[in-house]
Amino acid sequence: MTEPSFPPTVFQSFVEQADPSNVAPRLADLRAAMAAAGVDAFLIPRADAHRGESVPPGEARLAYVTGFTGSAGLAVVGRDRAGLFVDSRYTLQAPAQTDTGLVTIHEWLQPGFSPDLLSFVPKGGILAYDPWLHTPGELRHLGKLVEGHCTLLPHANLVDAIWTGRPGAPVSSVEFLGHNRAGQSAADKIAAIQASLASDKADAAVLTLPESICWLLNMRGRDVPNTPFVLGFAVLPQTGLPTLYLDKAKITDELVAALDGIAHVAANAALPHDLAALGAAGKAVLLDPASAPIAIASALSDAGARLIEKADPVLLPKAKKNAAELAGMREAHLLDGVAMAKFLAWFDQHAPQGGLTEIAIVTALEAFRREEESCVDASFDTISGAGANGAIVHYRVTTKTDRTLAPGELMLVDSGAQYLSGTTDITRTLSTGASTPEQRDRFTRVLKGMIAISLARFPQGTSGAQLDTLARQFLWQDGVTYNHGTGHGVGAYLGVHEGPVGISSRYTIPLEAGNVLSNEPGYYKAGEYGIRIENLIVVQPSQGFAGYLDFETLTLAPIDTRLIASDLLSPAERDWLNAYHQRVYEVIGPKVEAEVRTWLKAATAAI
Amino acid sequence: MTEPSFPPTVFQSFVEQADPSNVAPRLADLRAAMAAAGVDAFLIPRADAHRGESVPPGEARLAYVTGFTGSAGLAVVGRDRAGLFVDSRYTLQAPAQTDTGLVTIHEWLQPGFSPDLLSFVPKGGILAYDPWLHTPGELRHLGKLVEGHCTLLPHANLVDAIWTGRPGAPVSSVEFLGHNRAGQSAADKIAAIQASLASDKADAAVLTLPESICWLLNMRGRDVPNTPFVLGFAVLPQTGLPTLYLDKAKITDELVAALDGIAHVAANAALPHDLAALGAAGKAVLLDPASAPIAIASALSDAGARLIEKADPVLLPKAKKNAAELAGMREAHLLDGVAMAKFLAWFDQHAPQGGLTEIAIVTALEAFRREEESCVDASFDTISGAGANGAIVHYRVTTKTDRTLAPGELMLVDSGAQYLSGTTDITRTLSTGASTPEQRDRFTRVLKGMIAISLARFPQGTSGAQLDTLARQFLWQDGVTYNHGTGHGVGAYLGVHEGPVGISSRYTIPLEAGNVLSNEPGYYKAGEYGIRIENLIVVQPSQGFAGYLDFETLTLAPIDTRLIASDLLSPAERDWLNAYHQRVYEVIGPKVEAEVRTWLKAATAAI
Repeated sequence: MTEPSFPPTVFQSFVEQADPSNVAPRLADLRAAMAAAGVDAFLIPRADAHRGESVPPGEARLAYVTGFTGSAGLAVVGRDRAGLFVDSRYTLQAPAQTDTGLVTIHEWLQPGFSPDLLSFVPKGGILAYDPWLHTPGELRHLGKLVEGHCTLLPHANLVDAIWTGRPGAPVSSVEFLGHNRAGQSAADKIAAIQASLASDKADAAVLTLPESICWLLNMRGRDVPNTPFVLGFAVLPQTGLPTLYLDKAKITDELVAALDGIAHVAANAALPHDLAALGAAGKAVLLDPASAPIAIASALSDAGARLIEKADPVLLPKAKKNAAELAGMREAHLLDGVAMAKFLAWFDQHAPQGGLTEIAIVTALEAFRREEESCVDASFDTISGAGANGAIVHYRVTTKTDRTLAPGELMLVDSGAQYLSGTTDITRTLSTGASTPEQRDRFTRVLKGMIAISLARFPQGTSGAQLDTLARQFLWQDGVTYNHGTGHGVGAYLGVHEGPVGISSRYTIPLEAGNVLSNEPGYYKAGEYGIRIENLIVVQPSQGFAGYLDFETLTLAPIDTRLIASDLLSPAERDWLNAYHQRVYEVIGPKVEAEVRTWLKAATAAI
Repeated sequence: MTEPSFPPTVFQSFVEQADPSNVAPRLADLRAAMAAAGVDAFLIPRADAHRGESVPPGEARLAYVTGFTGSAGLAVVGRDRAGLFVDSRYTLQAPAQTDTGLVTIHEWLQPGFSPDLLSFVPKGGILAYDPWLHTPGELRHLGKLVEGHCTLLPHANLVDAIWTGRPGAPVSSVEFLGHNRAGQSAADKIAAIQASLASDKADAAVLTLPESICWLLNMRGRDVPNTPFVLGFAVLPQTGLPTLYLDKAKITDELVAALDGIAHVAANAALPHDLAALGAAGKAVLLDPASAPIAIASALSDAGARLIEKADPVLLPKAKKNAAELAGMREAHLLDGVAMAKFLAWFDQHAPQGGLTEIAIVTALEAFRREEESCVDASFDTISGAGANGAIVHYRVTTKTDRTLAPGELMLVDSGAQYLSGTTDITRTLSTGASTPEQRDRFTRVLKGMIAISLARFPQGTSGAQLDTLARQFLWQDGVTYNHGTGHGVGAYLGVHEGPVGISSRYTIPLEAGNVLSNEPGYYKAGEYGIRIENLIVVQPSQGFAGYLDFETLTLAPIDTRLIASDLLSPAERDWLNAYHQRVYEVIGPKVEAEVRTWLKAATAAI
C-alpha cells in the first residue's frame, strides 16, 4: 500500500537525540571541574528550578551529560563511577541512550534518593548539588540518607561550567487571557490568595511553579514544549502587588504595560536581593517544600525570614476550574473530538490493510488536529504503541523504535493537544481486524472500570484515593491490574498533568466541583499488547443529590465496540456506553464531512 | 402476650449507673485537691494506662467525677468550670448522665484535644495531667495547643486522691493457651519480635497494650469486661527473657511456674526501677507513642535511654492470625451460628406479635449463647435497637431507654461473644412483618455493599482504605452513606476491635492473609430506623490467582431475605447470597433441633 500522505509533524520529533559517544568526554570534563572544586560527587537531576515535566534545552543537564532524555531521573557522578537512577518506565530506554560502560543504571523503586547513591561517594567525601535544582523536602531526605557517610555541599552548577554552547533561557511571546477565557481577573485571584496568606499568618509567599504563576496572572507562554508556560518566579506579599521575576530578555515594555496595576516585573537577577530584603525585615514567608528550590529557602532564612512550609497556595484554587475555564475545556474537547473522528475514520480505513507505522499514525493525528488553527501544540508526545509496543506504558516512538502495525494487532494511541481554549488528553485502543477472546475480555474489564468512574456518585469530602478501586475491581476479579494511577489532574490550557488532585491511592485530597481529571484504566501484557481507555472528566455537583458530586465527561470520541465482550457488560454499563456514543454522534457528527460522519454513525451505533 | 422467659443476663447490665447528684460533691473535693496542689485545671481522660475500650472499676475516673460512662471522652476540671468532651456517639448520653449545671458538654469533631479546652484554664495557669493516662503523641499535640496559654504539669492523679472506696486493681485468674489454640509458642513469638527489634536497632521494647502482652505470652484473663485481658506491662529485651509486670496481688506461684523459661514476673512497683536501669545503661528502647503512657517514656529518657518511637511491634504479627487461631475463629463462629439460629427463630416467632423489648431481646440472645458453655463473655454490650433506636449507631439499652418493638418496625441487633475458641461480632437487621419500599431499597444497597466486600479480590499490598468504597458505592448512587468505617480488625479470643488493619479510609496498612475483619456497611435514618449487616471475614490467598487475596466469610447466620428488593441484585450478588445461605443451612442445620432447623430451612431458601 502507499503510505498515506500528511504534512510532517511540527509538535513532535521522532529523532533519537541521545548519542552515547558524548558521555565519555563530558564525564571527563565534569570530573575535572569537580576536582578543581574539591568535590567528590555531583548530583544531576532531570528537574529545573520550576519542576516541570518539560525543561528548556539549556536546562537539560541530565541529557547533556548522560544522554538520557526521559522525563524523570537523577545522575550522580563520582570520581570514578557514575550512576543513573530511573523509574520502571525508563529501564529499557536509559541503557540504550547512555554509555553503560561508564554509567550504571539503577531502578528507582520510588522517586527520591536511593541508598545505592552512597556507593558513588567516598566515605567522608563531599557530595555537591545545585541548590536551584533541589527542594527543602528532597534535601531533608538526602541529609538523612548521607548522615554519617559524607557531607552535602550546595555549589554552583558544575555542568553549566563545562557545557560549551549551552542554549540560553527561552524567550517566547507572552499572551494574556481575556475574561472570557480566564473567568476571573488576575486581581481577584491575587486577592483570594492574599486572603489565604493572611489566614496562614504569612507576610508573603514565593511562587516557583510556572503553572501557579501563569494561572495567577492569567498569562501563558511557549517557554517549553507541550505546556504554555512562561518560566519565572513570583513573590506575592500579603498586601500590595506581586512581583514577577523573569529572564531579563523577556521583559518588554508591552509586558510591563500589560501587567500594569497587576504585578511588578523584575529581572531574575533581582530575586536574591529581594529575598534578602524579606529576610532582613523578619517576614514570615510561605514556601512549598515540595517544589521550591532550596536556594530560595536558604536565601530567605539566612537573611532572617521565618519560613512557613506549606503547599503552594495556588494549587487548590487552580485545580477548581471556574465556569469560563470549563466552557473552554468543553470547547477544546469538541475541537479534539472532530480531529479524533477524522483520525479514527482514517485509521479504520487504512489499518486493516497493514503497513501503517507508529510514526505515520502520530503524523496523521497531529495533522488532523492542526486543521484546527487554535491547536497550538501537542499536550505531550503521542504514545503510539502498535502491538507489543502498546504494553510499554510511557512508550515514545523514535525512528529507531518505529514499528509497522500488522493487521490483527491492537493499536494504543494516547495523545492530547493544547488548544487556546483548553487542554485535552485521550487514549483509545483500536482494533485492526481480528482480536482474541482474551483481548476482548481485558478490553471490556478496562472499559467497565472506566465506566464505573464515569458513573460514580460520591459525597463531598471523598478523595480520588477512595475512587481508584472502582476502576480496578473488574481486572482484580481476574487477578490482574495496571501499574499506574487511574487519573491525574489536567490544567485549563496549562499542564496536562497537574496536582494536587487525581485518582490513585496517593491522591488523598478531597475532590471538588470543577476539578478536571483523566479517567484511564488499562491493561498491559508485556510483549503482546496494551489496552488503555481514557476520557477526561470534570467533577460537578450531582443534580438532585445534595452534598454529592459526580462526573461530566468532556472527551467526545468513539470507543471501539468491536473489542467489547458485550456479555460482560451490565445493563447500566451498556446504557452508559450507548448514551455516550449517541452524544458523540450528535455533537461531532454535524461538524465532520459526510464520509467521516458515515463512519462515525457506524462507530457509535448502540450495542 | 407473655414476655418470653429467659434467665437474667450475666454479661450485660441494663442499669443506668450514672447519678448526676454525685457530680457536685466530687467536683468540690477535686477542686480542693487541685488548690492544695497549686493546680488550675486537671485532665480526666476515659483511658487507663492500657488504652482499652473497657477499664476496670478503679480506673473509671471519668465516670466517677462526671457520671459519664461512655467508652471515650475527656473531662477538664478548672477552678470554676468543667468541660466534658465527647464524640457524636455520646452527645445525647453525656448530658443525661452528668450535672449539666456544672459540666459543659463539648462535641469532639475528632479525637484529641480541642481548642475549647483552653477556656477552662486561666491564662498563665497550670494544667495538670496524670502521665500514666496520656501518650507522648497526645502530649505533643496538647503542648502545641496550650503553647503561650498555660503550663503543662505531670502530677499524681488527683481523682485517686479524693476517691473514697476506690476499687482495687482487678485480680482475675490467668489462663494459658495450649498449642492447639495459640498455634505458636510464646518462645517462638518472642523470638520473632526480638528479631524485629534487632532490625530496628532497639535494645528493648516496652509493651503496654494488654492485647500485645496477652498474645505474646499466650495468656488470657478476665481483668476487664468483654475482652479476656490480663492487665500488665512488659519489657522485652532484644535477647533474653521478657519481664511481665503485674499488680502484685496477681502474682502467684502457679503463674510464675507457668511462665518459667518464657518470662520473668515482677510487680508493677518494680517497673520504674527497671526503666531507670535501661536508661542508665544507655539502651535504645522502642515505645509506641500512640499507646504507651508518657510516664514510661519520661522515666526512660530522663534516665538516659534513647527512645525509638515506633508502632508496638506485636500489632502486625498479632493481626495475622495463624492456622490454629483461624481454626478457633471458625469454631467460635459455628457455635455462634447455632446460637444465632435459635435466637432468630425465636425472634421470628415472637416479634410480629409485638411486645418484645430491647432488653428482652438482649436477654434472649445472651441466653442462647450461654447454652454453649465455652461462651465466657459477650465481646461487647449488645446494640439492641428497636425502630428509631436502630438509627443510633452505638446505642446501648438501659432500663431508662428500653423500647418495646412494635410490629412492622425494623430491629437492629449487633452483638458478639467471647468463646474460648475465638471472638465473634455479628449484626443482623430483622423484619417484624411489613417493611416499606424505602427500607427494602436501603437494606438491599447495604447488602450489595456487604457482598461487594465479600466477593472482592485484590492484589497483595492493597489496604482496607482501598476497599472501603466498594461497600459504599450503591448507597452513594442514591446520595446516602454511613458515618462509620466499613470494618475493623477482630482479635482471636482477644479484643473485638483491634488494629492496625481495617476497612475505612484511615486504614492504609496493606491487608495480609490471616487478618480477621468485620464487614458491616449500614444506613441510618434518624428518628425512623437503622440498618446494618455485619459478617466477619478473613483475608486469604486467592486460589488460582497468584499474588491476589480474597475473603473467607466466618459468620454463619441468615440474612433477612424479606427485606431484599431482589430486582436490585445482580446475578452475581444473588448467587453469592444463595450460596451463603446454603452453606449456613448445611453447617448449622444439623446442629439445631428440628423446629429451629425447619425455620432455618425457610430463612435460607434461595431467592
